[in-house]
Amino acid sequence: MEARVGDADHQALKVWLRLLACTTQIENEIRRRLRTQFGMTLARFDYLAQLYRQPEGLRMSALSRYLMVTGGNVTALTDDLEAEGLVLRETDAGDRRSFKVALTPAGRKAFEKVAQIHEGWVIELLGGLVPAQKHELHELLGRLRVHLSQSQENNA
Amino acid sequence: MEARVGDADHQALKVWLRLLACTTQIENEIRRRLRTQFGMTLARFDYLAQLYRQPEGLRMSALSRYLMVTGGNVTALTDDLEAEGLVLRETDAGDRRSFKVALTPAGRKAFEKVAQIHEGWVIELLGGLVPAQKHELHELLGRLRVHLSQSQENNA
Repeated sequence: MEARVGDADHQALKVWLRLLACTTQIENEIRRRLRTQFGMTLARFDYLAQLYRQPEGLRMSALSRYLMVTGGNVTALTDDLEAEGLVLRETDAGDRRSFKVALTPAGRKAFEKVAQIHEGWVIELLGGLVPAQKHELHELLGRLRVHLSQSQENNA
Repeated sequence: MEARVGDADHQALKVWLRLLACTTQIENEIRRRLRTQFGMTLARFDYLAQLYRQPEGLRMSALSRYLMVTGGNVTALTDDLEAEGLVLRETDAGDRRSFKVALTPAGRKAFEKVAQIHEGWVIELLGGLVPAQKHELHELLGRLRVHLSQSQENNA
């Protein structure tokens, strides 16, 4: 009985450790493949992915926030990508002190090529689940996120 | 019809992005609480947690591998924790060139205090799921991990 209570107590911890382990394993594998197949860091891929979703461009500050996960140095990445003709810095009409960054057409094209292969990797890495299981996982993680957002608002 | 095919194609990507978002959000919140409530880095917590699970101690090299996730500097952490009396370096009987590290009784006690509160945070952060849903999530992530381990073996 006590053992069962103990198990129930540790359920959340077990789920969290497994969530962390799966995410880390997938992320490391994607990082490895980006490096070996494209000579690209995960930070650079995430940077391009964020800009791709915002065709009108993003302020540097917003981009830095989005990229907190991978911790890339946004200014250095922007310098490199601008030199390669993949992004453009433009002064923000609303705030002349700050810059916006946007993908160039060449940048969009370069990202699309990598993104397609990246999605193939993700499909393969998540291949342990049939579509109905992926759907169920997506639903459960959605519930988790709603609760996380609420508890962060309560703590703010 | 095409839109539905498109949705199905992107299912794995959507699941992955949500998995990454949930993990990052929980990890950042735990990192924040460790810092504000215990003045402790996540790397230090993970270091102590790994040693706690290995009462006979761990080689520095094994510890470094386990801590890849949080990227803590194992040597610097060991120096700090040894100075505080929480860990002990001992020469490895099997290989005199390498050190093993183990928690001292004071280290075990100090970790247990933080670990108990940490588990309370995890229970709270995962509170969006009822026990049956946590069980289901644990199962799905288990399937995912088995597949991930297999595909890594195939790539090795």
